[in-house]
Amino acid sequence: MNISIIGGDSRIAYLCRMLEKDGNFLCLYGLEKCELLKDYNHVENIYQALESCDVVITSIPLSKDGKNVNAVYSDKCIDVENLLKNIKNKTVITGNIAEEIKQYIAEENNIKLIDVMKLEELTVLNAIPTAEGAIQLAMQNSLVTLHDSNCLVLGFGRIGKILSKMLNGIGAKVYCEARKDQDIAWIKSYGYNAIKLDELDGSLNKFDFIFNTIPYLILDKKKLSIVKKDCLLIDLASKPGGIDFKEANNLGIQCIWALALPGKVAPKTAANYIYDVIRIGNRKDEII
Amino acid sequence: MNISIIGGDSRIAYLCRMLEKDGNFLCLYGLEKCELLKDYNHVENIYQALESCDVVITSIPLSKDGKNVNAVYSDKCIDVENLLKNIKNKTVITGNIAEEIKQYIAEENNIKLIDVMKLEELTVLNAIPTAEGAIQLAMQNSLVTLHDSNCLVLGFGRIGKILSKMLNGIGAKVYCEARKDQDIAWIKSYGYNAIKLDELDGSLNKFDFIFNTIPYLILDKKKLSIVKKDCLLIDLASKPGGIDFKEANNLGIQCIWALALPGKVAPKTAANYIYDVIRIGNRKDEII
Amino acid sequence: MNISIIGGDSRIAYLCRMLEKDGNFLCLYGLEKCELLKDYNHVENIYQALESCDVVITSIPLSKDGKNVNAVYSDKCIDVENLLKNIKNKTVITGNIAEEIKQYIAEENNIKLIDVMKLEELTVLNAIPTAEGAIQLAMQNSLVTLHDSNCLVLGFGRIGKILSKMLNGIGAKVYCEARKDQDIAWIKSYGYNAIKLDELDGSLNKFDFIFNTIPYLILDKKKLSIVKKDCLLIDLASKPGGIDFKEANNLGIQCIWALALPGKVAPKTAANYIYDVIRIGNRKDEII
Amino acid sequence: MNISIIGGDSRIAYLCRMLEKDGNFLCLYGLEKCELLKDYNHVENIYQALESCDVVITSIPLSKDGKNVNAVYSDKCIDVENLLKNIKNKTVITGNIAEEIKQYIAEENNIKLIDVMKLEELTVLNAIPTAEGAIQLAMQNSLVTLHDSNCLVLGFGRIGKILSKMLNGIGAKVYCEARKDQDIAWIKSYGYNAIKLDELDGSLNKFDFIFNTIPYLILDKKKLSIVKKDCLLIDLASKPGGIDFKEANNLGIQCIWALALPGKVAPKTAANYIYDVIRIGNRKDEII
Repeated sequence: MNISIIGGDSRIAYLCRMLEKDGNFLCLYGLEKCELLKDYNHVENIYQALESCDVVITSIPLSKDGKNVNAVYSDKCIDVENLLKNIKNKTVITGNIAEEIKQYIAEENNIKLIDVMKLEELTVLNAIPTAEGAIQLAMQNSLVTLHDSNCLVLGFGRIGKILSKMLNGIGAKVYCEARKDQDIAWIKSYGYNAIKLDELDGSLNKFDFIFNTIPYLILDKKKLSIVKKDCLLIDLASKPGGIDFKEANNLGIQCIWALALPGKVAPKTAANYIYDVIRIGNRKDEII
Repeated sequence: MNISIIGGDSRIAYLCRMLEKDGNFLCLYGLEKCELLKDYNHVENIYQALESCDVVITSIPLSKDGKNVNAVYSDKCIDVENLLKNIKNKTVITGNIAEEIKQYIAEENNIKLIDVMKLEELTVLNAIPTAEGAIQLAMQNSLVTLHDSNCLVLGFGRIGKILSKMLNGIGAKVYCEARKDQDIAWIKSYGYNAIKLDELDGSLNKFDFIFNTIPYLILDKKKLSIVKKDCLLIDLASKPGGIDFKEANNLGIQCIWALALPGKVAPKTAANYIYDVIRIGNRKDEII
Repeated sequence: MNISIIGGDSRIAYLCRMLEKDGNFLCLYGLEKCELLKDYNHVENIYQALESCDVVITSIPLSKDGKNVNAVYSDKCIDVENLLKNIKNKTVITGNIAEEIKQYIAEENNIKLIDVMKLEELTVLNAIPTAEGAIQLAMQNSLVTLHDSNCLVLGFGRIGKILSKMLNGIGAKVYCEARKDQDIAWIKSYGYNAIKLDELDGSLNKFDFIFNTIPYLILDKKKLSIVKKDCLLIDLASKPGGIDFKEANNLGIQCIWALALPGKVAPKTAANYIYDVIRIGNRKDEII
Repeated sequence: MNISIIGGDSRIAYLCRMLEKDGNFLCLYGLEKCELLKDYNHVENIYQALESCDVVITSIPLSKDGKNVNAVYSDKCIDVENLLKNIKNKTVITGNIAEEIKQYIAEENNIKLIDVMKLEELTVLNAIPTAEGAIQLAMQNSLVTLHDSNCLVLGFGRIGKILSKMLNGIGAKVYCEARKDQDIAWIKSYGYNAIKLDELDGSLNKFDFIFNTIPYLILDKKKLSIVKKDCLLIDLASKPGGIDFKEANNLGIQCIWALALPGKVAPKTAANYIYDVIRIGNRKDEII
């Protein structure tokens, strides 16, 4: 199969290698500075890239600023709208594409759009390297072991669940915060200590590590004033995050905002997850 | 607080003891043969029971046949409709009450109905004794250890999740079956072996224990023919169950249909869960 | 290979089936009432059994009273001394044979004696069904779940280690008692709560389950007076055990002395362990 | 109590802070460049340091070259023999002191020598930060997650046991190598995959991570030739280590020799372990 790859980060680089190994013909645009792909077929013109392929794979997510394709291995500016307008009658695999673009372009140009970031399957799997990355950061930035430490996980969604399991597996004392009664029941089922949001203040001063997964302000000025000065805060939530970073800084509490961990700490594993969900021609339930 | 208890099983008996310990005044009807409650205040007339109380707690579930209150410690027939018609201006804590009864009676009689079996929190918690009970049955009815055995869990809902965790904790090799891609992703995240429903046949012959949690026929004639003869089947699904029991019997495969385990294997724990969710006057977020 | 089997319990029965499956010729004596072996070659005379075989396998342990071979599936009295005197120039696989018998007979008769109960490997493996059996008994004899219960394990030897791991895996809160500082360090490493023997009294009143593995009196009159009345005591230690059973009985505390669990709860697994360690002609490092 | 501290690393620095917090008077020599201790009482002359104290605590281990005290925060050369000759009638807490020095000096000078590195308790505890440090290194130096990776642990001693548990807790597929049958039995008990040393070659090509804990050459030229090129090797064994580093390098296999991890990755935890075992005046079973 002929596949064009437009932009992307280290995960896309490893994905290219897997796709090539399967015998696909790749045409790359916006990856010319990637050491890993230096012997691959790069083209200098986006139209050339889009011309003869069956499938287009873009950076995942497609864009960070809403305007240009995310392309960390390139000096080129790749305009999202221009790109999409010039794809016709093809399958496009992308991530987090804006709803308005999706509709008017996809229909007009007969594009079969697959937004992998909308696949719950991939979102669950990505929580694994995110949790591992959080643990790596915690280990790198502290003077104590996670083993036998008091760890608080704020939020019991995908990342909260997997992170709690791993912390417990290393020997930490795990406390999970949630608001819903049923999440509290799950936390108890899994054997962690459950804390309801409105009871959080009473125990905040005992934690050595606090991991936030909630994407709105939880650790505000008042709550931070209770936290131990040598506690390490790691925020895994997307913007605006859940910690008042400025106040943490004022108080001298170490705080790390860790975003996009899968591509940073385990690009090969993250690429493999994408590879598995797009299943190009290698499984009976292939989607293309 | 004055509380009347109408019918029930061992869980209700232990619940009575907790409520009494808290200083409530109890009036019991339909529990006269319960050894545990022999020194309690039993009345012989249902109207007397309903007269002066603030709260009525019924058997949970309210009824098994849809007609009479479930009352294993009594020879009395307690008609569901007659019971509900005679409760007015009170709070009623019950379980699995039929929607049609609920509406016309509750509104007419100004009853505040709390159906604890509709509380997701309690359903999650009840999966704990269900999973433990399943493990107990597996241990009692087999000649091998769960440790190092091949265990299959059909379905990855509440019971499936908790049972898998416990089996893994004892040292079994855990395989989980699910249909949805996102469940498969969760199964992998938790470190169990994932099997998709349509790939099940290929591995069915290797299991020492199969636990079903899916409430419709999964292990049919064809699938059972692949299962090892000395495999132990335990069906935890409510009617109609997920195993062709007759066929299993024909093939000489041991098969146990285990229902209502929480009240059987851990009535005190199960009572405690109910006690926690009804929170009568003992927590700031009490529901009554 | 020609193998004679003399006496034994359910584990020996399953062992016979494995040995036969491998193509060995078996001659049985003292197993005539075993349903599982009814189609096997039983002989009525011990001399006949010992005549033409290469290997003799006895009951494991050889004897319980020091005089007769342990033979639960037989009405025969098989005298230990007479048996051993009549074996010459053969390999004998047995268990827990008295040192004095071992020396004078083995040398005189040119017997290669293999006492499998002296193999540390088998002792470790047997701790697995022992721990599972203890958990089964705990589940069967209590009204609460092990999950979220307070469990105390007395002694951190083989059984203590494996039992603690399994209890933790089910979701119990595990406390381990030990005397040596290094055992305390191991207990902490594994993430359980460590209690030194001399600090035990202070926490004895909080346990729902106490498992003893220490073969001398630990839970004496004084300590039992602190234990909760609805605590379940399970003694896994060989004679004289570690619990004052009479006193426990006086206090109304439920107490189970569980011996020889592997053969009772998982005879097939236990037989498999023996099969693996005796390795008759099926591995390159076979011992016979 | 008056305590003199002679040399040491970050663990000694944190130990100083704990001892001071307890109200002891400290006199430091050979720590003058330690930022953490800049406000403490440093003396410029070793005789002054030894003069009026009750207890002397040295670097742990005392020396790395056998000649000078290990003192990473100092430009001073502190001669081991001169130090020990000048301590009289005191308790000395040190680590890994040479047997010959120990005897002639301790007796002559009436020194009560406590070598904490000889305490099995501390050695077990130190395996915790060692294992965590190994995991941190594995995470930092690989492109894949530990979760779902194939990990081999060579040796099933203290570090092997704790590292295997943590790797399993993160979700790795854990394989442990051992030579003794009883260790193989323990590995199975804990639910890991057991590999005997002589069967290692057959599976060496499947590992993503190999952790060595055996202090003599295991991964030699021949074995390394089987290992995957993108496998990460981490050697935790003290000199001479268990991996042919030069050959690994030739083959382009990434190899890290990680020594003295507790002081590097978790100095505060490591200090706390030492603090706990020396128990100066704060527990009823204090050793001083």
